[in-house]
Amino acid sequence: MNLPSNILAQAVEQLSTLPGVGKRSALRHALFLMKEDEARVRDFAEAVLRLKTHLHRCRHCHNVSDTEVCPICSSDKRQRGLVCVVENVQDVMALENTQQYRGLYHVLGGVISPIDGIGVSDLEIASLLQRVQTGVPFPVEEVILALPTTMEGDTTAYYLHRQLQPLGVRVTTLARGVAVGDSLEYADEITLGRSIAHRIPFEG
Amino acid sequence: MNLPSNILAQAVEQLSTLPGVGKRSALRHALFLMKEDEARVRDFAEAVLRLKTHLHRCRHCHNVSDTEVCPICSSDKRQRGLVCVVENVQDVMALENTQQYRGLYHVLGGVISPIDGIGVSDLEIASLLQRVQTGVPFPVEEVILALPTTMEGDTTAYYLHRQLQPLGVRVTTLARGVAVGDSLEYADEITLGRSIAHRIPFEG
Repeated sequence: MNLPSNILAQAVEQLSTLPGVGKRSALRHALFLMKEDEARVRDFAEAVLRLKTHLHRCRHCHNVSDTEVCPICSSDKRQRGLVCVVENVQDVMALENTQQYRGLYHVLGGVISPIDGIGVSDLEIASLLQRVQTGVPFPVEEVILALPTTMEGDTTAYYLHRQLQPLGVRVTTLARGVAVGDSLEYADEITLGRSIAHRIPFEG
Repeated sequence: MNLPSNILAQAVEQLSTLPGVGKRSALRHALFLMKEDEARVRDFAEAVLRLKTHLHRCRHCHNVSDTEVCPICSSDKRQRGLVCVVENVQDVMALENTQQYRGLYHVLGGVISPIDGIGVSDLEIASLLQRVQTGVPFPVEEVILALPTTMEGDTTAYYLHRQLQPLGVRVTTLARGVAVGDSLEYADEITLGRSIAHRIPFEG
């Protein structure tokens, strides 16, 4: 792309680093921002910068938070013996939206993926084991592995299970099965196979 | 969306103002930036802010520029009697990429669109007429209307033609016709109709 200005080119360069944003979209974004009020663009730039300067990771669960300890870990209304292990912050949000879970979380920050060069030490795994071993901030009774059903997710779950087992904590995982609203005809065969193998009592 | 942090929520809010970016993409962008180095995010924020603080509109043609007069208007290698009128900055870039045009430009900043509340006074129309009338910065021999083939583009072209005609300047428009590489079968009938009505001598 042949841009008429270096300043525009630099903004396009920066905006196109965002995930899924190509040069053409980045140019559209830059020209849009150029037309906005200066105060608006200043707010935009500051809000983005505050992500680095003011946003915390919760000291216990590593979820994003405005404070050193996040509202979930601070709340005395949660079941503090339950820790749900998830890949990332979006997964916490997805689970919170269900309003079905009242325990705590532990955000790994990814899953083990040798191809992407992500190993055990790149993830919040040591801190999870420590949390279970020491009972700080709260004694852990059950660890729920809520990881993606990919090869990397399964590998990570298997690794965590192996590490957690000796610590005498209960380890569970999310139920797998046919999604609510799905017809059997279109469910993939692995899901369908698992859901019949792990069938559950009918709730009339 | 139920975000765990106000700082994150504000960044998502700002990022989702970008054209075509919804809350979900904005969250992905925010979490991506959160993981980048602080120096990188600072560069990002500064590059965006410079769009307002350092980027100019060329005094003559209103194209974006790092300087008060853009490189195209400053160049003595361009045909200065030719002014191509376009809707926006992207159109200048598209025409420059063809390497077929060596004249100057005039960026209107939009087209007349009563539905969107965009009238003559919101566009760089007065400055175009003045440019033709006064011959500043250069005497204009021909104005090429290169506006979109939409109702709004046609309305704007018609309005400009009416205003320019009395000034004694030649007014032309882009050739319309079957796109290069298109088969007739799939060309729309208006384009096909116009392209036979305005047929041109065969260049053997």
